[in-house]
Amino acid sequence: MTAPIADNMGRFAPVVEGRDRRGDLILVCDHAANAFPAPWGDLGLSDDQRRAHIAWDPGALGLMRGLAARMDAACVHATVSRLIYDCNRAPDMAGAMPARSEVHDIPGNAAISPEDRLARTRAVYQPFHAALHDLIADRIALGRRPAIITVHSFTPVYHGVARAVEFGVIHDADPALAQSIVAEARARTRLNTDLNAPYSAADDVTHTLRLQATPYGLSNAMLEIRNDLIATPEAEASMADTLAPVLSAALARLKEA
Amino acid sequence: MTAPIADNMGRFAPVVEGRDRRGDLILVCDHAANAFPAPWGDLGLSDDQRRAHIAWDPGALGLMRGLAARMDAACVHATVSRLIYDCNRAPDMAGAMPARSEVHDIPGNAAISPEDRLARTRAVYQPFHAALHDLIADRIALGRRPAIITVHSFTPVYHGVARAVEFGVIHDADPALAQSIVAEARARTRLNTDLNAPYSAADDVTHTLRLQATPYGLSNAMLEIRNDLIATPEAEASMADTLAPVLSAALARLKEA
Repeated sequence: MTAPIADNMGRFAPVVEGRDRRGDLILVCDHAANAFPAPWGDLGLSDDQRRAHIAWDPGALGLMRGLAARMDAACVHATVSRLIYDCNRAPDMAGAMPARSEVHDIPGNAAISPEDRLARTRAVYQPFHAALHDLIADRIALGRRPAIITVHSFTPVYHGVARAVEFGVIHDADPALAQSIVAEARARTRLNTDLNAPYSAADDVTHTLRLQATPYGLSNAMLEIRNDLIATPEAEASMADTLAPVLSAALARLKEA
Repeated sequence: MTAPIADNMGRFAPVVEGRDRRGDLILVCDHAANAFPAPWGDLGLSDDQRRAHIAWDPGALGLMRGLAARMDAACVHATVSRLIYDCNRAPDMAGAMPARSEVHDIPGNAAISPEDRLARTRAVYQPFHAALHDLIADRIALGRRPAIITVHSFTPVYHGVARAVEFGVIHDADPALAQSIVAEARARTRLNTDLNAPYSAADDVTHTLRLQATPYGLSNAMLEIRNDLIATPEAEASMADTLAPVLSAALARLKEA
């Protein structure tokens, strides 16, 4: 992955791809990157830690791009590690700039000054959500009502416990799309699929949906794929082949309802 | 009022005042301006129409600034007439770029092309909400939880019917602050005050609150003052003297609760 570059205001804009695609779907990958650019650098983490799931969602970016290509959807992804700023968290949530993630202390986040909290919010969080909001508002201005789907991955073993679920679908206030995706996944795939697993909105993991989709009444859902199933480019493509028809059928079902 | 100036992207940023003030309150005036800048110009309206309440909320900007000074609050206001784009409406709402307002046809809005709807959304709506969101996120990053209060005015006679209410307080999903403001206004002033008057969230008038305050769980309310009560700079200042203690008491009551 190439290093992200800040603009002349020190802001790390997300990458928007497929802006002109015609599908009424916007895919979002909050945790696409494990880049640790200046002025923060590696936060005192080892190479192994910076490659691990605590820094990003391995496989999620490739899967999202595969889904976007198959579904003619625009997509947006962050370019900076979630350990510098997690764009799926509000600035006052502990997880926005976490001091600890699973079993790992994050030395560079142990004592963040108010000035640095503000600087990270301005450099990463604000431009990410401004770009996503602009993309959504563009489509709404043209009379389109895009569904918003965020794409994440989770670790097979968390705090020493193996997770059996392979595909989790999480909802915020409006459960309709998430429920449809679960139903279609169970009907069309052999993935071990669960609603609101391996965690749910009660764990404060739906900030992006709450900020971007809910105010406009747009259908929305958060996908979680177990990362051992999308560990190579070939596996990402295969999972996109599996899930694109699931998402398309779920969206079509909502339109009929 | 001086003419607003677009940046080199053709965007009309709102004006942010008092960014460094310490009060945990952000005041917003969506309808502060009756400026009709190029490329849209006067939309075919007469001078009288462009001075009337259909173009803006007369008195609201002066009242908001008076409240902001008295309450040590930051404030944000739009610089372009709501008839070009109403920042308190999503881009797909009829009121965003209305073809008719009260009894007046708006010639320049009778047949807006998709390209122009998109251009207005990008020029006015997106920068307004990006600037407000950045201001809110800055404060949240610093551990502050600002209340968000929008300041509007309404016409004493609408469709030929006189309105008896003088001060209306409207809420979106969370009624707590609006209810407190009504209670304090009734206790402390002689203003004819009503909750959800002269209209309510059901009329789709709370977009700014829904987009900016609700996702963060920030206390919020929309104020509506009958514009004959704030028709001069002296009246605006007098109303600010009346309402600042009302708002302060209402906010204090919420903190105690």
